[in-house]
Amino acid sequence: MQTTIEKRTAGSPAVKSAPISSRVQEILGWYGSDNPGTLTNLSRLLNHGRLAGTGKLVILPVDQGFEHGPARSFGPNPPAYNPHYHFELAIESGCNAYAAPLGFLEAGARDFAGQIPLILKVNDHDVLNDEKDPFQALTGSVQDALRLGCVAIGFTIYPGSTHRLEMYGQIRAYAEEAKKAGLAVIIWSYPRGSSLSKEGETAIDVCGYAAQIAAQLGAHIIKVKLPTAHIEQDAARKVYEKEKIPVATLPERVRHVVQCCFGGRRIVIFSGGPADATETVLEEVRAIHAGGGFGSIIGRNSFQRKKADALKLLKDIIEIYSAKSS
Amino acid sequence: MQTTIEKRTAGSPAVKSAPISSRVQEILGWYGSDNPGTLTNLSRLLNHGRLAGTGKLVILPVDQGFEHGPARSFGPNPPAYNPHYHFELAIESGCNAYAAPLGFLEAGARDFAGQIPLILKVNDHDVLNDEKDPFQALTGSVQDALRLGCVAIGFTIYPGSTHRLEMYGQIRAYAEEAKKAGLAVIIWSYPRGSSLSKEGETAIDVCGYAAQIAAQLGAHIIKVKLPTAHIEQDAARKVYEKEKIPVATLPERVRHVVQCCFGGRRIVIFSGGPADATETVLEEVRAIHAGGGFGSIIGRNSFQRKKADALKLLKDIIEIYSAKSS
Amino acid sequence: MQTTIEKRTAGSPAVKSAPISSRVQEILGWYGSDNPGTLTNLSRLLNHGRLAGTGKLVILPVDQGFEHGPARSFGPNPPAYNPHYHFELAIESGCNAYAAPLGFLEAGARDFAGQIPLILKVNDHDVLNDEKDPFQALTGSVQDALRLGCVAIGFTIYPGSTHRLEMYGQIRAYAEEAKKAGLAVIIWSYPRGSSLSKEGETAIDVCGYAAQIAAQLGAHIIKVKLPTAHIEQDAARKVYEKEKIPVATLPERVRHVVQCCFGGRRIVIFSGGPADATETVLEEVRAIHAGGGFGSIIGRNSFQRKKADALKLLKDIIEIYSAKSS
Amino acid sequence: MQTTIEKRTAGSPAVKSAPISSRVQEILGWYGSDNPGTLTNLSRLLNHGRLAGTGKLVILPVDQGFEHGPARSFGPNPPAYNPHYHFELAIESGCNAYAAPLGFLEAGARDFAGQIPLILKVNDHDVLNDEKDPFQALTGSVQDALRLGCVAIGFTIYPGSTHRLEMYGQIRAYAEEAKKAGLAVIIWSYPRGSSLSKEGETAIDVCGYAAQIAAQLGAHIIKVKLPTAHIEQDAARKVYEKEKIPVATLPERVRHVVQCCFGGRRIVIFSGGPADATETVLEEVRAIHAGGGFGSIIGRNSFQRKKADALKLLKDIIEIYSAKSS
Amino acid sequence: MQTTIEKRTAGSPAVKSAPISSRVQEILGWYGSDNPGTLTNLSRLLNHGRLAGTGKLVILPVDQGFEHGPARSFGPNPPAYNPHYHFELAIESGCNAYAAPLGFLEAGARDFAGQIPLILKVNDHDVLNDEKDPFQALTGSVQDALRLGCVAIGFTIYPGSTHRLEMYGQIRAYAEEAKKAGLAVIIWSYPRGSSLSKEGETAIDVCGYAAQIAAQLGAHIIKVKLPTAHIEQDAARKVYEKEKIPVATLPERVRHVVQCCFGGRRIVIFSGGPADATETVLEEVRAIHAGGGFGSIIGRNSFQRKKADALKLLKDIIEIYSAKSS
Repeated sequence: MQTTIEKRTAGSPAVKSAPISSRVQEILGWYGSDNPGTLTNLSRLLNHGRLAGTGKLVILPVDQGFEHGPARSFGPNPPAYNPHYHFELAIESGCNAYAAPLGFLEAGARDFAGQIPLILKVNDHDVLNDEKDPFQALTGSVQDALRLGCVAIGFTIYPGSTHRLEMYGQIRAYAEEAKKAGLAVIIWSYPRGSSLSKEGETAIDVCGYAAQIAAQLGAHIIKVKLPTAHIEQDAARKVYEKEKIPVATLPERVRHVVQCCFGGRRIVIFSGGPADATETVLEEVRAIHAGGGFGSIIGRNSFQRKKADALKLLKDIIEIYSAKSS
Repeated sequence: MQTTIEKRTAGSPAVKSAPISSRVQEILGWYGSDNPGTLTNLSRLLNHGRLAGTGKLVILPVDQGFEHGPARSFGPNPPAYNPHYHFELAIESGCNAYAAPLGFLEAGARDFAGQIPLILKVNDHDVLNDEKDPFQALTGSVQDALRLGCVAIGFTIYPGSTHRLEMYGQIRAYAEEAKKAGLAVIIWSYPRGSSLSKEGETAIDVCGYAAQIAAQLGAHIIKVKLPTAHIEQDAARKVYEKEKIPVATLPERVRHVVQCCFGGRRIVIFSGGPADATETVLEEVRAIHAGGGFGSIIGRNSFQRKKADALKLLKDIIEIYSAKSS
Repeated sequence: MQTTIEKRTAGSPAVKSAPISSRVQEILGWYGSDNPGTLTNLSRLLNHGRLAGTGKLVILPVDQGFEHGPARSFGPNPPAYNPHYHFELAIESGCNAYAAPLGFLEAGARDFAGQIPLILKVNDHDVLNDEKDPFQALTGSVQDALRLGCVAIGFTIYPGSTHRLEMYGQIRAYAEEAKKAGLAVIIWSYPRGSSLSKEGETAIDVCGYAAQIAAQLGAHIIKVKLPTAHIEQDAARKVYEKEKIPVATLPERVRHVVQCCFGGRRIVIFSGGPADATETVLEEVRAIHAGGGFGSIIGRNSFQRKKADALKLLKDIIEIYSAKSS
Repeated sequence: MQTTIEKRTAGSPAVKSAPISSRVQEILGWYGSDNPGTLTNLSRLLNHGRLAGTGKLVILPVDQGFEHGPARSFGPNPPAYNPHYHFELAIESGCNAYAAPLGFLEAGARDFAGQIPLILKVNDHDVLNDEKDPFQALTGSVQDALRLGCVAIGFTIYPGSTHRLEMYGQIRAYAEEAKKAGLAVIIWSYPRGSSLSKEGETAIDVCGYAAQIAAQLGAHIIKVKLPTAHIEQDAARKVYEKEKIPVATLPERVRHVVQCCFGGRRIVIFSGGPADATETVLEEVRAIHAGGGFGSIIGRNSFQRKKADALKLLKDIIEIYSAKSS
Repeated sequence: MQTTIEKRTAGSPAVKSAPISSRVQEILGWYGSDNPGTLTNLSRLLNHGRLAGTGKLVILPVDQGFEHGPARSFGPNPPAYNPHYHFELAIESGCNAYAAPLGFLEAGARDFAGQIPLILKVNDHDVLNDEKDPFQALTGSVQDALRLGCVAIGFTIYPGSTHRLEMYGQIRAYAEEAKKAGLAVIIWSYPRGSSLSKEGETAIDVCGYAAQIAAQLGAHIIKVKLPTAHIEQDAARKVYEKEKIPVATLPERVRHVVQCCFGGRRIVIFSGGPADATETVLEEVRAIHAGGGFGSIIGRNSFQRKKADALKLLKDIIEIYSAKSS
């Protein structure tokens, strides 16, 4: 019944009212326990921007003001102090969505209402303290997300922290409420804490594990960092070696993380990390795409560049994701 | 009064409504303080699969993705990364039920609705931290169990951990809510923590004690590990020796644990532990059956084998439990 | 994916967990806005008794004690005064479910737990008053349905009564709560009231209209009386005549009512009315089956016969529904 | 298992904890959907007073002060103006329980705590208005019943009144709350209202119907007036005549009402009506006993007599019920 | 006013409703701030069993399965693994009440409904950890107590533990809720913790202090261990010596503890401690009785003996308490 496929004119943004693509239909089919409201909001995410209908996502997240402080975040590109800047960047670049803490969203949600799917980060953390075992503050609510017109809530967990169990319990309660209200749930799963070495925070075994935990907690979309080939846990290393799980290249590692997200039945996207050289960023995106990842969440690498540069970079990233997957 | 057995007329559709067996009736009779809703769900558990009506249970639990990480859990048999795999395995093997955390159940509950009784594990734990005194996160709710169509909630306690008292309080509150809604309550009782030696975690005195605690907390079904002949507590050893409680053989120890579960008036099942040789697993099942245990919960030994092997093993296990008890 | 059929090994215990039929899967697919809990309970209804898996339903309803008084209801077959009688009749005959008011269900729900899907009639009416515009009392709650282990609630509306709008509001609130708890919702839609002629209560236009109202109110299953060829409303008559909607025969009228229930995407079943000659009842059932109806709800025609006669009649009815639809 | 009877050692203190009789056990077995709290309170009712253990009940109800006014109620025996009088009468006579509105219970519940099971009438009606379609005011709560130490709540419905449906809804809500708190529920079912002739209020068909309605509403104990042989409803008369239901004598009619209360699986007791000659009252009690009724609720015939006469009458009534049933 | 004693007429049914004794009336008079519901339940406790009406109490408590583990508790008398055993022992011995954790009460409350007053232990502790400063888990609720038909809740506090203040706060909240629902409140007051020497746990000053704390927390009944003549606190010793408070003999110490419980205006009972020689136990009971104590709570000394021996011991204890107090 939804078989009419909208032809995309090369170069033009996708038409938003066309019946959704078979790929998006397939993806929505993975979320059988969610109500149509949540599917509708997932569909909004997947059908907005230049990647609409492809099943791929590029999201602009701007929580660094809270996480790292404003000067470290916006000093390199002062227009980014203005919250409207980020709405505009996300809209103009054709991102699927814009994610931020309460204050940033409140500062533009009326002005840009209906122009870009919004994701409310409902917990946040600052670095005025630098605990070995970090935790996050609850800084937004499901009710906030509804009144601001968001499609989803975002929540960070720190697997590896001594506070992780309490964080899991918090997102459980948030997710139950969000799903009842028809919102989608995105978990930022960042391994950190006293039980992990610095290298272990991005180890492939730890990254896959963190992704699995987020999926088991009921996330619709999971966000992790790009993993390295390091293996942190002895018990895991035995299995990776015995089963010869291929994790030597970045595309292989991405493919493994996708597998760790319910064999590919949950959306997993990757963060680009600190501001980096353009070619490095694009190389990572090509690897994500080659490994079957669902997209990127590009913060500092976009809003810390001048706007024109950022738009160019995002355009290039989106074009990579627009190509047919290998 | 419910003894009339409906004869099947040749050519008529299959009758699935045969009155339940006298053994199941007897077991339901132990739960006099529960409402008919909870009895109905216990009856569904006891009347599903190849062991329907025997009073014996084989349950497929898949929480290892959360508990041990995805590669360690599913690397040995990669189709198991897909949550649908486990629904199918539980259904095809004729298990009584399938137990998993929120994410795994959400990923298949609509697709397999009505095909297998479901148990929602409502708390979970990961091993990115390896605390001496472990705790669990609350990862599901009674309301989740209702919306997913579950027959029961599952909850892990760690007797021996310094967090145990808080865990007992949590399951008390969950159980009160679950029983009111007509759900059954299953407690995974795993002794762990700084007060126990490694050997003590499976000591017969500790195992029996952990089973008793679960029963006193109001569990309908109790899950413990198979105990060894080791005795951990000096105060207990005196009694085992003085009263000559027979715990030398595995069937004797199973029988003692059954006795510790209200003299056999609560259902107690045993977990098989890490993946093991087929004959070892079957030998343990024979011992459980010989000792009057009510069944097994077989996770890693089933889903880490190739599917055909897992189906064969589960079939063999079920056949052991189908034999008349000694 | 769920098509693998489990072969029964000779001598092995009965398999009750065979994957559900493609017809039941198709039917469940119509209820995409319901959670897996409600699908599970619909599946239980459709997979119990002699018609399990066929997509057809025969339900035993016994609310006549309340609706017409005990002597009129049970005098013709005195064992039927005993509430256990009806549980046994429903179980032994292989019905899909048993529906009754609170008192009758409370009087047997523990004794027959797990033996037959139960439906709690949550509103009822007596005829000590004979209002032109009837209403019903709220006599049960969703919480009652959960504690008694029911799969569904049943609710009567009287389209045509001056009280109908309040009744619609009541079932809306009940249905919202029931669906959240994973229960199914069945609406008895009986046109009555001062705005209808006696003949109009079963007129085909009114019956189709009443069925549509129930479907629009969110019912999963709709129960109506068999309609006559009479057309009550002038405005409707014009369309039936202009569009030449075929309603001359009973199968045609059944087919039209099925059409009125969302073009066949909602389950609609028919009540047999007052006790009648066996052949009349069977003739009606053949017409329902021929017209694509989903089944019958047979009260007085079953429990007012001697038990052996009732079992014979229900067996004959079930055999009609077991035949491949024309 | 509970059959061991404790022998009383001469000189030892009286044993009040003798296991309850098999008849009481049988009666409690009818209430399988109630929690042990409600069974405990039913047991207290059935095990108090001179009829303890017999399964028979004599209850003293004093709501006439509210229902008929104080002078009409207590003028004939002025000590009865004092609320303590009724506690003493119920205690000294060996009744099973004392039932009254809030004020009367509040006036003595501390003074007589633990001396007689109490029933709080939670709705009441006065005759300063004499409506054709009577209703009742809600005058007590379940919370009141708990704070006063009651074993049950009592609630009046008026089948036949245009307000009956609302009354049914009220008792449903009260009963749900009472049962959750472990209290028993007693319904006074008194047919009255514009749809009934005066004679019809006690007609056998109407009485049986009213009893059935109370049972379907979930009452544990049903109280009705003694019926006459009159039949009020034409539709019912046909059945009584066709099925030759014997209702000519009072014992036959009592037996029929017992049958209307779930074939004898609910407790039904009878009220004695206005003050009458002693022999008339006793004759009625003999008929109730002969017909298998469970007892009497004797208000005006006790408290409007002088105390000595009332005690004598109640003693004689209790002796009738103590005799082995015919 | 309630002094009229009903004479039993030969041949008439037994009178169980005799007005309660003047001693019980006197005791109830101490609880003027409690509602009649709580007085009713206190009265049930005081008027059940062989000591009914004497103002003395013997209670069977069985929480050792939780507190010490099943083998240590029930190994010496294996029938005691079965929860029904304890109901029967309490009933047959003529105890006033049976106290146990949730699981044990749930396992028999329906089967023995109305046969023995029940006390729900709502907090419990295990010894798999042996903390210097013990705490307890919340294992039951007031709502549980109501649904199981209990007359009281039981709660343990550990004066001397660093967790004591939180425990005091917990029982305060429980007691507030219990009293509103008409239940009685029993506090087990066991001094333990890092601030006390082992000897100090039963020191007379500490015991009296612990009893006072329980009384001040609003307990209706206080349970303490029998105190020794040791005095733990220097500040207290000065007063005991200066005021020459007699604590040399056990009866003197009991009398002092009674005095510490509001000068005798609160019920205080004593636990017998570990299984001991019969004569030792009886000697202690004689001392309690001589000192004006209200009774004993006899766990291990009863259920760890063979049943016949336990019945004999309880009979002897009850006979001591039946004697007129000195």
